[in-house]
Amino acid sequence: MTTTVLSSATREVKIGFNEPFVIIGERINPTGRKILAEEMKAGDFSRVESDAIAQVAAGAHMLDVNAGIPLADEPAILAQAIELVQSITDVPICIDSSIIEALEAGLVVYQGKPLVNSVTGEDEVMERVLPLVAKYGAAVVAISNDETGISEDPDQRFDVAKKIVERAADYGIHYSDVIVDPLVMPIGAVNSAGKQVMHLVRRLREELKVNTTCGASNVSFGLPNRNGINSAFLNMAIASGMTSAITSPLHPEVMQAVRGADVIMGHDPDCANWIQAYREPLPAGGEGGAREGRRRRRRKA
Amino acid sequence: MTTTVLSSATREVKIGFNEPFVIIGERINPTGRKILAEEMKAGDFSRVESDAIAQVAAGAHMLDVNAGIPLADEPAILAQAIELVQSITDVPICIDSSIIEALEAGLVVYQGKPLVNSVTGEDEVMERVLPLVAKYGAAVVAISNDETGISEDPDQRFDVAKKIVERAADYGIHYSDVIVDPLVMPIGAVNSAGKQVMHLVRRLREELKVNTTCGASNVSFGLPNRNGINSAFLNMAIASGMTSAITSPLHPEVMQAVRGADVIMGHDPDCANWIQAYREPLPAGGEGGAREGRRRRRRKA
Repeated sequence: MTTTVLSSATREVKIGFNEPFVIIGERINPTGRKILAEEMKAGDFSRVESDAIAQVAAGAHMLDVNAGIPLADEPAILAQAIELVQSITDVPICIDSSIIEALEAGLVVYQGKPLVNSVTGEDEVMERVLPLVAKYGAAVVAISNDETGISEDPDQRFDVAKKIVERAADYGIHYSDVIVDPLVMPIGAVNSAGKQVMHLVRRLREELKVNTTCGASNVSFGLPNRNGINSAFLNMAIASGMTSAITSPLHPEVMQAVRGADVIMGHDPDCANWIQAYREPLPAGGEGGAREGRRRRRRKA
Repeated sequence: MTTTVLSSATREVKIGFNEPFVIIGERINPTGRKILAEEMKAGDFSRVESDAIAQVAAGAHMLDVNAGIPLADEPAILAQAIELVQSITDVPICIDSSIIEALEAGLVVYQGKPLVNSVTGEDEVMERVLPLVAKYGAAVVAISNDETGISEDPDQRFDVAKKIVERAADYGIHYSDVIVDPLVMPIGAVNSAGKQVMHLVRRLREELKVNTTCGASNVSFGLPNRNGINSAFLNMAIASGMTSAITSPLHPEVMQAVRGADVIMGHDPDCANWIQAYREPLPAGGEGGAREGRRRRRRKA
């Protein structure tokens, strides 16, 4: 029963086979968000702050922080964003960059044990990222592609993941600190995308014994009612063994799917979280209505 | 790749590992519906008619018909209800009774190949139901309990299912005409209910190679936001190999979950059904708006 333990200065989050599903909020990412990119580049982090607070309030267990802005000082901006997010929330962070100097700048300022996003199966990338992960005692997201690109064959992607886990071990990184992203294709373009992920997640869990994560919303790219597809996908990936996802917690449908999956997996004892999130408010004047402390409210999600 | 073919006089429905998920509408059942029970007993089938039409319109692929009313002439009422439903819809029917004479009365009037609901692993029940199923060339729902009741151990339930499949073979009924119900417990009472079903469905599919069905809404008994739990459960059961369910298609959330599951399983080529169900209406005056035949409408679900 593999468990990956991440932490902030004051809080621990476990990703694991026997744990509730972990949502890593994806919103703090300037890719495709022009206004956020301009603000961050100009040193205005007000939207980073409000995105962090909103995602945690909506149920994110961790936050991804990315500062990938063209022609900007990414290491400095990423470090600043991480310090800010850590000062206003207590959830662990996923430090997200394709630039090694930015990852290190984030790791230097981070308080606790973060998740580094990401390493691929490319030799050059592994040689640069894995020593950093080891040096700072972090965990890492392993993306199952290499120099040859992303294979359409999930078993080839499994082999890439295996190579990364083995290479990580050479640097002293335990497999429980490697979280594999099986890579989710848009199902509108690749009809077998869902089955590929389910097959691969199962193999990753049973054979490599690693935790898994994914950019869940990719699956619905180009389709109407994306949250409907994303919800079905998440439930089905969780049934196949997926243990976390990098996605937006701001959609009540998606959060409901994840809470429902926790119930079905047996990871919500007595359905306590489900009941807290969805119980009906008592009618005014009914039992508890008179006692303020017992008032039941529907949690905003 | 097992396929169970059911039919009405004019239409065939396939339940199978490589087919879209099949929803068997559960509403035509007087159990717990006092008004419906009184009406059916008095020969008023207007609600049976409207329930049949509403469920097919909402997306049911088959209809369960039950006439279990205390102190009523169940065989006659069931036969009459089946003839009525077959006269106004073209979907195959699941003939549902615990009384052997009622099952036979339904089978006598039925046009096509129906599903008989149900046989258990009790010797006496198998000896009475299976010859009927064989005689009328029907398929049958096999419920995985026997004289000792319902085991909490899914592997014991597997053994009961195996016994029924083998006994059916003795009567010349092919395993593809036995659809096993693994039995779904309320997860508010049995925390492992979801995992039990997922484990059992996988074994039934991989080892016995049979299709599966269940009374899906049992899982959420006693919990708030039941459709939320039912949706998550259905998606996760489908990911584990479940191929049909006896449930209500009248909840848009549940139908969305099932359509989403078809997409993720690769059983909705080009996501055509999904897009038809959920595409955005074109703005008035936009492309297609002027041409009546191309007008896009959101399908009621």
